[in-house]
Amino acid sequence: MYRFQCDYAEGAHPLILKRLMDTNYEQTAGYGEDPYCKSAGDKIKKLCENECIDVHFLVGGTQTNLTVISSVLRPHQGVIAPSSGHINVHETGAIEAAGHKVLAVPSEDGRITAEQVRSLYEAHWSDASHEHMVQPGMVYISYPTENGTLYTLEELARLKKTCTGLGLPLFLDGARLGYGLMSQKSDLELADLARLTDIFYIGGTKVGALFGEAVVITNPELWRDFRYLIKQRGGMLAKGRLLGIQFDTLFEEGLYFEIAKHADNLAMRLRDAFLRKGYRLRYDSYTNQQFPVLPNEHLEKLKENYSFEIWESADDSHSTVRFCTSWATKEEAVASLIRDIEAL
Amino acid sequence: MYRFQCDYAEGAHPLILKRLMDTNYEQTAGYGEDPYCKSAGDKIKKLCENECIDVHFLVGGTQTNLTVISSVLRPHQGVIAPSSGHINVHETGAIEAAGHKVLAVPSEDGRITAEQVRSLYEAHWSDASHEHMVQPGMVYISYPTENGTLYTLEELARLKKTCTGLGLPLFLDGARLGYGLMSQKSDLELADLARLTDIFYIGGTKVGALFGEAVVITNPELWRDFRYLIKQRGGMLAKGRLLGIQFDTLFEEGLYFEIAKHADNLAMRLRDAFLRKGYRLRYDSYTNQQFPVLPNEHLEKLKENYSFEIWESADDSHSTVRFCTSWATKEEAVASLIRDIEAL
Amino acid sequence: MYRFQCDYAEGAHPLILKRLMDTNYEQTAGYGEDPYCKSAGDKIKKLCENECIDVHFLVGGTQTNLTVISSVLRPHQGVIAPSSGHINVHETGAIEAAGHKVLAVPSEDGRITAEQVRSLYEAHWSDASHEHMVQPGMVYISYPTENGTLYTLEELARLKKTCTGLGLPLFLDGARLGYGLMSQKSDLELADLARLTDIFYIGGTKVGALFGEAVVITNPELWRDFRYLIKQRGGMLAKGRLLGIQFDTLFEEGLYFEIAKHADNLAMRLRDAFLRKGYRLRYDSYTNQQFPVLPNEHLEKLKENYSFEIWESADDSHSTVRFCTSWATKEEAVASLIRDIEAL
Amino acid sequence: MYRFQCDYAEGAHPLILKRLMDTNYEQTAGYGEDPYCKSAGDKIKKLCENECIDVHFLVGGTQTNLTVISSVLRPHQGVIAPSSGHINVHETGAIEAAGHKVLAVPSEDGRITAEQVRSLYEAHWSDASHEHMVQPGMVYISYPTENGTLYTLEELARLKKTCTGLGLPLFLDGARLGYGLMSQKSDLELADLARLTDIFYIGGTKVGALFGEAVVITNPELWRDFRYLIKQRGGMLAKGRLLGIQFDTLFEEGLYFEIAKHADNLAMRLRDAFLRKGYRLRYDSYTNQQFPVLPNEHLEKLKENYSFEIWESADDSHSTVRFCTSWATKEEAVASLIRDIEAL
Repeated sequence: MYRFQCDYAEGAHPLILKRLMDTNYEQTAGYGEDPYCKSAGDKIKKLCENECIDVHFLVGGTQTNLTVISSVLRPHQGVIAPSSGHINVHETGAIEAAGHKVLAVPSEDGRITAEQVRSLYEAHWSDASHEHMVQPGMVYISYPTENGTLYTLEELARLKKTCTGLGLPLFLDGARLGYGLMSQKSDLELADLARLTDIFYIGGTKVGALFGEAVVITNPELWRDFRYLIKQRGGMLAKGRLLGIQFDTLFEEGLYFEIAKHADNLAMRLRDAFLRKGYRLRYDSYTNQQFPVLPNEHLEKLKENYSFEIWESADDSHSTVRFCTSWATKEEAVASLIRDIEAL
Repeated sequence: MYRFQCDYAEGAHPLILKRLMDTNYEQTAGYGEDPYCKSAGDKIKKLCENECIDVHFLVGGTQTNLTVISSVLRPHQGVIAPSSGHINVHETGAIEAAGHKVLAVPSEDGRITAEQVRSLYEAHWSDASHEHMVQPGMVYISYPTENGTLYTLEELARLKKTCTGLGLPLFLDGARLGYGLMSQKSDLELADLARLTDIFYIGGTKVGALFGEAVVITNPELWRDFRYLIKQRGGMLAKGRLLGIQFDTLFEEGLYFEIAKHADNLAMRLRDAFLRKGYRLRYDSYTNQQFPVLPNEHLEKLKENYSFEIWESADDSHSTVRFCTSWATKEEAVASLIRDIEAL
Repeated sequence: MYRFQCDYAEGAHPLILKRLMDTNYEQTAGYGEDPYCKSAGDKIKKLCENECIDVHFLVGGTQTNLTVISSVLRPHQGVIAPSSGHINVHETGAIEAAGHKVLAVPSEDGRITAEQVRSLYEAHWSDASHEHMVQPGMVYISYPTENGTLYTLEELARLKKTCTGLGLPLFLDGARLGYGLMSQKSDLELADLARLTDIFYIGGTKVGALFGEAVVITNPELWRDFRYLIKQRGGMLAKGRLLGIQFDTLFEEGLYFEIAKHADNLAMRLRDAFLRKGYRLRYDSYTNQQFPVLPNEHLEKLKENYSFEIWESADDSHSTVRFCTSWATKEEAVASLIRDIEAL
Repeated sequence: MYRFQCDYAEGAHPLILKRLMDTNYEQTAGYGEDPYCKSAGDKIKKLCENECIDVHFLVGGTQTNLTVISSVLRPHQGVIAPSSGHINVHETGAIEAAGHKVLAVPSEDGRITAEQVRSLYEAHWSDASHEHMVQPGMVYISYPTENGTLYTLEELARLKKTCTGLGLPLFLDGARLGYGLMSQKSDLELADLARLTDIFYIGGTKVGALFGEAVVITNPELWRDFRYLIKQRGGMLAKGRLLGIQFDTLFEEGLYFEIAKHADNLAMRLRDAFLRKGYRLRYDSYTNQQFPVLPNEHLEKLKENYSFEIWESADDSHSTVRFCTSWATKEEAVASLIRDIEAL
């Protein structure tokens, strides 16, 4: 039985575990004020080609999203997000529990455009009774999106330009950032994100770490008191060095990028196999998540030896499913799956 | 210049002002614990044909909605509402500020169906990761809706039956309740609402009062500690008797119903005039709000002597507008408007 | 039976009611955008000797406090307040429900000092783990306090100077402001408050109005989007002119000050009577609330003809009680009470 | 340099790290629905001598406290806690950010009594205007307390009986639970906590784990939808098995108790040394935290080779300091410290 259900089925990359072993008996300060967090932050600053950014380490994605968003917005403001955005669908109302409406924008494949942002903004401010409505206060996007899709450098630059013009901080959720950056279709690097967002995070949980998300605040206006917010929202890890050690390892000699590339490569082999078999792809993903539309009988057959997620029903006889690869996916698992697809 | 822009442009029905004058120097307990609130509550109980209900008086609609909803839900629950519902659009995120997501259901004319509620509920619970999503916790509807439309007794009964079956309290926003109940198309009475909702409110602000909404909690499970919630959310009026006096007057000898009927009758005359002129009606309203689709040149012409609300653009040459009548609208204003429409 | 229990037992000053009658059939814009709110705001600006302030009208005190405080603070900040402050004791946790801790400072008579504020502030910032604690974000005081006491001009100036130095906006709750300003011991005028606070409000509910509090934002940094906050917290009155009309009347020819003076004068006569009788005063109040410590048998005797509030037990045989006068208190009521005290 | 500053300076017990290594490549379901969480939960149920309890695993203490408390309370309710309680002092207002006031009860050594709870409860309900105040809704205590002190079985039983009688769920914060249970002065076992609280948690972070707190909900009325709350508050770990594995290891063959005992034993040796030296103990702690009052010159001398926390100034020439031992403290470190104390 091979699992392609999600990208967090295993533990951590062995180099991370080794590093945790090696440092286990060291005594350090808690709450992220240890040398490992410092070192990891420095590596991230270097990759971002910007010394003047603020880096924090949190445990998980929902926690990171709610901490960032509640840090930025005033009470009457909401966050613009694609309707399929994680904060709008899969965080049990964490943003609303922090007091803010998610201003959902329709999205076919998880992306939104600068024009949509501008249009929502203008609709708000041109309404005579705008004070009776939630004021747009920031923009949330993800890279890659929930659907595995990517923004081009140009698209992101236009979003950022629009956001800056409208006074809306742009926040990029990078829970699967590695898989986005290493995609063959990506023309973005970490330094671009540092230039083209106000705040973003580098996902560790889904890219080789036991857990952890590195928040990068590039806009100095958003730095203030962020550690208070982390603590208040329950995200300040007592043994904060566990996060520092993991990210320090991931950004040592490019490990993060290397293992993400591995997952993307395997996903591309799956993608080719799906297309060769004549399956339609629900989203045009070049990252580690693939969304083929399968005849239901094929789906049942594959279920016997592989786990994957049923995404949605496509029609009476077809379903969209999701296959994920990860840093931990084995070549043999992919090879086996491709053989079985071809044999269907 | 005649105003048809909204139904709260004037002060209060003169009988209310007179009563305020007459009682001005009386000394009573504050915070709604005076004889007038008691008397008004008793009258409402009688009209609801149920002694065993809880009646509270609040100042305004947004305050009432946020107090009721935050009283009913647990933190991880949201409120199902039509996408055009007041709580979803025009309350500056008051519900979210109290911690809860509005689970918007598509609606053409402001109404939602029992089937839509059931379908959203089932979609939630059948999702394997439902704990990652906001749990539906109650249902919000309005009567009449934002679009002037009504539920039939049968539709409401089906909604209630569905809600009860699913364990979802049904809350009815009656900001314009009088105009709904007195519509020629309404087959509902106050006692039906008391049977067919768990909690509803009787709007005073838009139906003859200076301000005030009477909340009726028919489901005893929702009674507990409601006054704490009113106080916490800033809705407990120090001189609470002002609310009691107003509702006591409104429900004396049927004043509330009489003045609402007046508004509805005038609105029906407008409706007929619009139809005779060949205007399409955007929503099929038999209440005090009318939404004709006007050629833009007619709109400009009418603007000279009448104020009304531009609702939305219909096409390049037409706009939907809203005309409201109220308890205070004068026959002569309506007659004048009809003459001018006919002359266009 | 004469009531001295509170200062909101009656309706409104007759000039207010008359004005409501006179304007009842006028049609105006809603939500505070009418000429009466404009006019009342202009009068307040004039009295504050500052055109460059922002004036808003809300319905009640709790609503005002929670709207102001949630407008000023970021999520991790709390509001410094005297332990006996209304927001800390008598608002059902409204401030906490908006997400903020009340940082209570011990207070003997309702007042706090510049030194206490500085000390709390410094204790916070000098603590190595200050990020684990609520950050002081503003200061709340009331004038007069819950105990009827006053700040001198010099005390207030020192508080303001300290607050400004520490970057803490100073908010003054003036629910009973008139009774404070007109006290024989007050050396403050409205224009001083406008200089020496960042935001304050002028209480109407307890000083002649049916209801209403006028919020004055003197610090331009706190102006932004305040109307959104009012709406979101449920405080935007549909028929906003009701507030404008009331404050416009109260500030016409000094009515507000005149009726407050009346109440203070009567309170001073009571104060003298208590002292002549040999009663101790729990708080040294020169405003409309008096707190004598009565032998319990006297208390029981007075109860027969007067209502007043039992404040707390003083010892086995004595109780502190509260007598309030108001704009509506009749001379004869005070004269009768004084006679009966003397006869005890 | 030996560190006695806190009990979370090192990583994890080596058996935990080994287990993480051994299971690293297994593929499991996420979000706590894996076999390790099941197994750990079963072990905890067994130790609690109750199959009918609900066990959940969260990452840290603040997160656990805010998730539990916001799960239990309605919006107008607060949590009774000792004034020195972690939720009142060191969580950056996390409870208030979730909407609830902490109702602080004075406490000399971190403990509160059944009488204090009853008294606060009765003061609330006997106040005529109790609806204007935060309603007590639950009770929070910790074991051991912030000051290292313990409740006896009898004290806890009385607290529980009082809470049950008043309808207040009793929540016990066990961030350092092991060090409490294994104290020579403790007459409590895990099964007693399961009987005598409604909800409690077993701290892992400070007792041998990398991180993790095991929440035990013994009162079935509090079970409902707890996982939604975990997710909403950001506490649902994607790779939830990391928590399961850690607690499964800690409760295998009594490891948790054994390592806690080790720390307590070393702390007792320190305690004896302090007393022999004639130091006063600020709190009478028989657990892993010791609070001796040191002459400042001794303090300065010890600082050269040991780190510890300055708790508070005792007088001009003395300070209270805190020394912590933990599962990781080495005998030689304690021996060295004792030698150096004796030599002062």
